[in-house]
Amino acid sequence: MPHIERTAHVGWDGNLARGAGTLDAESGAFARLPFSLPSRVGDPGGKTSPEELLAAAHGGCLTMSVAGELTSAGTPPGRIDLDCTIVMDEVEGQGHQIVGSKVEIVVRADGVDEVEFQDAVVKAHAGCPFSQLLERAGVDVSIAARLA
Amino acid sequence: MPHIERTAHVGWDGNLARGAGTLDAESGAFARLPFSLPSRVGDPGGKTSPEELLAAAHGGCLTMSVAGELTSAGTPPGRIDLDCTIVMDEVEGQGHQIVGSKVEIVVRADGVDEVEFQDAVVKAHAGCPFSQLLERAGVDVSIAARLA
Repeated sequence: MPHIERTAHVGWDGNLARGAGTLDAESGAFARLPFSLPSRVGDPGGKTSPEELLAAAHGGCLTMSVAGELTSAGTPPGRIDLDCTIVMDEVEGQGHQIVGSKVEIVVRADGVDEVEFQDAVVKAHAGCPFSQLLERAGVDVSIAARLA
Repeated sequence: MPHIERTAHVGWDGNLARGAGTLDAESGAFARLPFSLPSRVGDPGGKTSPEELLAAAHGGCLTMSVAGELTSAGTPPGRIDLDCTIVMDEVEGQGHQIVGSKVEIVVRADGVDEVEFQDAVVKAHAGCPFSQLLERAGVDVSIAARLA
């Protein structure tokens, strides 16, 4: 991979409690995604949040790593479905922190057995830059993977 | 803030090099966002990436922190515009890693002077869970902020 830079733009109007913001991707893939404090800590009500975006980022990166490891092993995936849940919680003395990323992966791939599959998932987790980022930061990453 | 959990769903079809995926937010705020390896490392071509999503996550969180600090200081913002750029690069012996987050902030707020403003930005960075996550992971976070 080359050096990669990716940018997002944020706009915000008003104070923290009653203000609201929007998120735009420089790629154009998303635009004017709404976020706010009430929807971040309570009912999302159709709005996104930094935590949900990180869930998509970690989930997307890990999915690519799993596809790559299975491909390297000679058993490329037909289909991968992955759910990633980011957990934020109060940490004593440190305020609120990202403390967990819980991942569930279901893979359809021909010709791979359970041991080879779990080995590929372990390698994918070890090689995924977002898994590494989270683990270096002390975030608890848990992964449950199964063949469909 | 309470305990927060936010989930994204990832679907992927095919191998790493020629396959493609989509990202869905459990909140419904975004759906079927496309991503792939060629668009992650080369021309985005309208597709997003884990790096762009992290840029939106860090940018969104830091924007809320700045709004909060300025509000606490008695000078709530009228408008905040923020750009966040996530940098991924090769790190010797560690493969590709998230190495940087470059942030530019422009704020309109009545009654705040430059010293008070920069103090609020420093406090916002220190209190932002995503800034803390990135710094704990060894990512270089740089912030340039100015009053409009």
